[in-house]
Amino acid sequence: MLSNTRILPVEFGQCDPSGIVYNPNYFIWFDQSVHALLGQGGLSLKGLIADCGIDGIPVVDYKCKFVAPARWGDELTIETSVTALHRCAFDISHRISNGGVLAVECSETRVCTAMDAVQKRPKAFPLPQVLVKAFTG
Amino acid sequence: MLSNTRILPVEFGQCDPSGIVYNPNYFIWFDQSVHALLGQGGLSLKGLIADCGIDGIPVVDYKCKFVAPARWGDELTIETSVTALHRCAFDISHRISNGGVLAVECSETRVCTAMDAVQKRPKAFPLPQVLVKAFTG
Amino acid sequence: MLSNTRILPVEFGQCDPSGIVYNPNYFIWFDQSVHALLGQGGLSLKGLIADCGIDGIPVVDYKCKFVAPARWGDELTIETSVTALHRCAFDISHRISNGGVLAVECSETRVCTAMDAVQKRPKAFPLPQVLVKAFTG
Amino acid sequence: MLSNTRILPVEFGQCDPSGIVYNPNYFIWFDQSVHALLGQGGLSLKGLIADCGIDGIPVVDYKCKFVAPARWGDELTIETSVTALHRCAFDISHRISNGGVLAVECSETRVCTAMDAVQKRPKAFPLPQVLVKAFTG
Repeated sequence: MLSNTRILPVEFGQCDPSGIVYNPNYFIWFDQSVHALLGQGGLSLKGLIADCGIDGIPVVDYKCKFVAPARWGDELTIETSVTALHRCAFDISHRISNGGVLAVECSETRVCTAMDAVQKRPKAFPLPQVLVKAFTG
Repeated sequence: MLSNTRILPVEFGQCDPSGIVYNPNYFIWFDQSVHALLGQGGLSLKGLIADCGIDGIPVVDYKCKFVAPARWGDELTIETSVTALHRCAFDISHRISNGGVLAVECSETRVCTAMDAVQKRPKAFPLPQVLVKAFTG
Repeated sequence: MLSNTRILPVEFGQCDPSGIVYNPNYFIWFDQSVHALLGQGGLSLKGLIADCGIDGIPVVDYKCKFVAPARWGDELTIETSVTALHRCAFDISHRISNGGVLAVECSETRVCTAMDAVQKRPKAFPLPQVLVKAFTG
Repeated sequence: MLSNTRILPVEFGQCDPSGIVYNPNYFIWFDQSVHALLGQGGLSLKGLIADCGIDGIPVVDYKCKFVAPARWGDELTIETSVTALHRCAFDISHRISNGGVLAVECSETRVCTAMDAVQKRPKAFPLPQVLVKAFTG
């Protein structure tokens, strides 16, 4: 399954008055890592929207454990992997370490959605084959 | 147990190119609701730090389900409740509805921490009595 | 000219490790106040896009002075006014006070844009009459 | 005078429903580039606080022009330079280009501050010599 690793320097402005990472920033990093994973597979959400008829890959579930705080000036490593593919959804795991020590663990599930022409609202849509191929290749 | 309700108008800048709330914003709202809950109990994190020897109440666990997307211009309602108190931690649940329909459900656990003078790192600290009283009162 | 006033409680997560508002947050507040100004005039950007053929009102110029820092727990007041209308643009001023004392002054210029069908890129577009009427009424 | 250049890939979550960069993100990038400039000079704000008695380098003035919008998937280049040193302040310019074309120009002034022991509030503080040396070296 596809995976990638990114280095995240913890910036001053990503920390709160306690001096530790303000936790919504982790969810920004998770999202960026999912986009990076698409890029690594030669895809982009923009391309999937243009070519495959989907309108997004929203998160439907997060389970996240913060094991140790990270501080301004720390350098984090985030490893992101596809862990399972379903008919219309896929699972991703993120593991963030700080100086070699586990700091955060997160699993997320995302669904491919497309606009339902009749109901005028997004509904689950089977994973595009290019996505399946990129994630498993 | 203490609970509160806040109205969240979804702002233009909180949405992504898909036109739905960019999900890290939900975690900002969860955090603000926890601070509002403290305020409703006559407390503040600033006061707890000054008076009780703690240095923070970081989240250690999130479980979050996104049931339906929210769009720019929607008006959300977030109900936040204390659901359990432990020796050094407390559990919170958030329920966000959009036009009367459930949009997001989240449970989080936070730990009271204080700097350990010997180890020079934060460690779990028993919940201050004023916090227990405010949350159960 | 249309103007409005909003109260901004400074949240924990809007402050940096120095304990003062992380300055990009001020630009979020400026943007939200411009949208609130539209709302006060009975308009919304969404409605302007749907009804008037524009595709946005991006900022082209900011001049901003930070006179005094604001801290976590402060309550700010932001007064936002339309100060001038041009053919395709309008000027806005924001004045943020903290406990009655001036904290931030900002002026911004925004342009109405629409997609140019030939050049396939956004270009300046005359202010919709409903906008002129709402801002001067 | 010290200067640096950074590449900024425009992420999905940094864009708004119009598909262009939500402008507060530019101010985050400006701030990160100032910290990167310190790093390039062998310094950090954390170190300046620990070693030089200052408590921060807050922005007091921004003048910013947005010449062209940047879109999700664009790759921006930001060039940041020290342009002037004053007794207690310094000026920085940022120039962001997109595909070789100017997109944003910004100048900012920052002040070194330290807590005044008598007045119990931050006041301007002469630039530390290590900072002057790093910026001019």
